[in-house]
Amino acid sequence: MKLQNLGENKLISRIRKDFSKPHPDILAEIGDDAAVIKHGQKFLLITKDLLFEGVHFLSPLHPPFLLGRKSLMVNLSDVAAMGGLPKFALLGLGLPPEMDSSWLQQYFAGFKSAASEEGVALIGRDISQTKKIAISVTVIGEGKNIIQRDGAEAGHHIFVSGCLGNARQGLILLKKGYRLGDNKKADPFLKAFLNPSPPITLGKELSRLKLVSSMIDISDGLSVDLSHLCEESEVGAEIHLDRLPLSQEIHHFQRQPYRLALHGGEDYELLFSVPPQNLRSLSRLQKKHQITFIGRMIEKRQIFLIDRGGRRSPLSIKGYQHFQK
Amino acid sequence: MKLQNLGENKLISRIRKDFSKPHPDILAEIGDDAAVIKHGQKFLLITKDLLFEGVHFLSPLHPPFLLGRKSLMVNLSDVAAMGGLPKFALLGLGLPPEMDSSWLQQYFAGFKSAASEEGVALIGRDISQTKKIAISVTVIGEGKNIIQRDGAEAGHHIFVSGCLGNARQGLILLKKGYRLGDNKKADPFLKAFLNPSPPITLGKELSRLKLVSSMIDISDGLSVDLSHLCEESEVGAEIHLDRLPLSQEIHHFQRQPYRLALHGGEDYELLFSVPPQNLRSLSRLQKKHQITFIGRMIEKRQIFLIDRGGRRSPLSIKGYQHFQK
Repeated sequence: MKLQNLGENKLISRIRKDFSKPHPDILAEIGDDAAVIKHGQKFLLITKDLLFEGVHFLSPLHPPFLLGRKSLMVNLSDVAAMGGLPKFALLGLGLPPEMDSSWLQQYFAGFKSAASEEGVALIGRDISQTKKIAISVTVIGEGKNIIQRDGAEAGHHIFVSGCLGNARQGLILLKKGYRLGDNKKADPFLKAFLNPSPPITLGKELSRLKLVSSMIDISDGLSVDLSHLCEESEVGAEIHLDRLPLSQEIHHFQRQPYRLALHGGEDYELLFSVPPQNLRSLSRLQKKHQITFIGRMIEKRQIFLIDRGGRRSPLSIKGYQHFQK
Repeated sequence: MKLQNLGENKLISRIRKDFSKPHPDILAEIGDDAAVIKHGQKFLLITKDLLFEGVHFLSPLHPPFLLGRKSLMVNLSDVAAMGGLPKFALLGLGLPPEMDSSWLQQYFAGFKSAASEEGVALIGRDISQTKKIAISVTVIGEGKNIIQRDGAEAGHHIFVSGCLGNARQGLILLKKGYRLGDNKKADPFLKAFLNPSPPITLGKELSRLKLVSSMIDISDGLSVDLSHLCEESEVGAEIHLDRLPLSQEIHHFQRQPYRLALHGGEDYELLFSVPPQNLRSLSRLQKKHQITFIGRMIEKRQIFLIDRGGRRSPLSIKGYQHFQK
C-alpha cells in the first residue's frame, strides 16, 4: 500500500506500535510534542522537526532570515508546550550546491537572533548537499513540572493563547502576492506565518504554577490538535465558535475567518486545559498574556462545536496531515 | 558566492565563528563528532546525522532493512568515537507519498534491530512528505570519560580498528552490479558499505580504561579524519603505508587498495592516538579487538606518508567533502 493511502495518523500509530518497548527513564514517548527523559530531579525534553522546501516552506517567498528564526521557533514551541525551558539546539541542513552563500548567511543570522533571544546555545551541526533545502532542528530543554497531553478531565476548561488563523491567513496572502511591508493590514498575518513567536514565557509560567492538566502547541490546526489532547486524555470537548479569538483585521480579508481559526494550522499558540480550582490563579496570568476561554472538556469522547445560536454539532477534524490525498 | 565554490570546511568554519558563544555547560561544541553537555557527574552526548537519497545512499540499491540499521549505526559510531554509551534515538523521516509502505516497514524493522542490539530506545519521531527520501537521526548518549579530538601530542601512537577501504570497495562493487549473496568474495565489502558495524564496544573500553588521547570515527576517510585530529590537537602525523590494515580479499578486486584505505570513507572504524605509557594496557585490548598501529603524531603540523621504501612524502587530504566540485 502506498503511504498516501495510509495517511499520517495511521503511519504514526504503526510506528508507535513498532517501538513501544517501555524504558524506565522515558516519561513521554513518540506521540508527544517532545520526548521526555528522567534526569535526576529534573527532566530532559528533546524535540525534533524536519522542514522541507516546497512542503513546509516556500523558499523564494520565505526570507531566509525569517526562515532561520522560524525553524528554531517551531521547536521551541514544542518545548514550551510541555512546560520546558529550551537550552540547546542542533542544526542539520541539506543545501543545494548552486545556492548562493548569502542565503545561508541570512538564514544563520535569523537562527542566531532567535537563539540568543531565547537563551538557546547551538551545540552541533551537520551540513550536506541536497537538491532542495532540508532543515532538521533538534532542541534540548529542561523541565521540572512537565505537562503532557493526557491529563485533561471532563469539566476542565479549555483555553488558547493569542489569536487563531493568522498564520494561515498569512500564507494565503503570501500566495496572493502580498509581501512584508507592502500593506499595513496584511503585515501582521504575513508575520504570523513567516516569523511566528510562540508564547514561550506563558508556557513556562503555566508549568511553574502547575495550572494546566494538558497542553499542546497548535501546529496542525485547533481541531486536529484538540483531537490529540482529547484522544490522549480519553475525553471529548465542546468548543464555542464565537469565543475563538480572532484578529480584528482578519475580517478585512476573510468572510469565514472561523474556518481558518478551527483548521488553519501553524499558529504555534498554546492550547491547554485547566481544572476549575485553578481558574482563579489563571485569571492573574490573563493580565499579562492573551488567554481565551473557548470551551470545556466533556465525558463523551467526541468534539462538538457550539454555534452562535447555541446549536451543538460534531466538529470535523480538518487540518494538515502528511500523506493525505 | 555559490556554496559549491566555498566547500564544506570553509562553510563549517564560518558557522563555527557565527556560533562561538561559549556556554558553561558545553564541553565540546560544533566540530566534534557529537555535542557534549555537562550533566552532574556525567556528560550527555548528542549527535545528529542527515542522510539524503542520492547523496548518502542509493535507494534502489540499498535494501531498506539495511538502510534502517545503517542510519542508526552511523550515529552510534559518532557516540562511540567520544567514548559514550548511546541510550536514546529520535528519528525524522521525509518520505515520498508514492512510496510503498513495505519499504517503511522494512526500514523500521532494520532500525529497530540495530536499536535493540545496542540497547537504544526510540523516544521521538517526525514524519513528513518529501520528493526524495530524507533521514534525520539524533542519538543521545551518556559518558563519564569523554574523549575529544584535541588531546593528541607529538610522540603518541596512532591506531585504527578493523580494516580500511572495505566500505568504499563495497560501493564500487554495488555500482558495478554486485548484489549481496551473489558472490562470496564480494559480500564482505557489500556488507561493509550497506550494513556497517562500528566498534562500539571497543570505544566504550578505550574510554573506560582512559587509554587514548584523541579519537574520531572514520566516516570521511582516513586522510580527512586524521587531518581533523591533527588540526584540533595542533600536531602533525606520519603514517606507514604498509601498516594500513587491509582485508586479504580486497586485492582480488583492487590493484591499488591503499588508495581506498587512505581516502575511501564510510568505514566507521575508530582512529585514535595513544600516549606511550598506555601501550602495554592497549596490547591487552588487542587480544579481543582488531587494532592496528599505523603511525605516530609528530610536532611538525603536516601529515606524511612513509612508503615501503621508507620514503616520506606529504599525504594529500582527499575524501568526501560536500559542496566540492
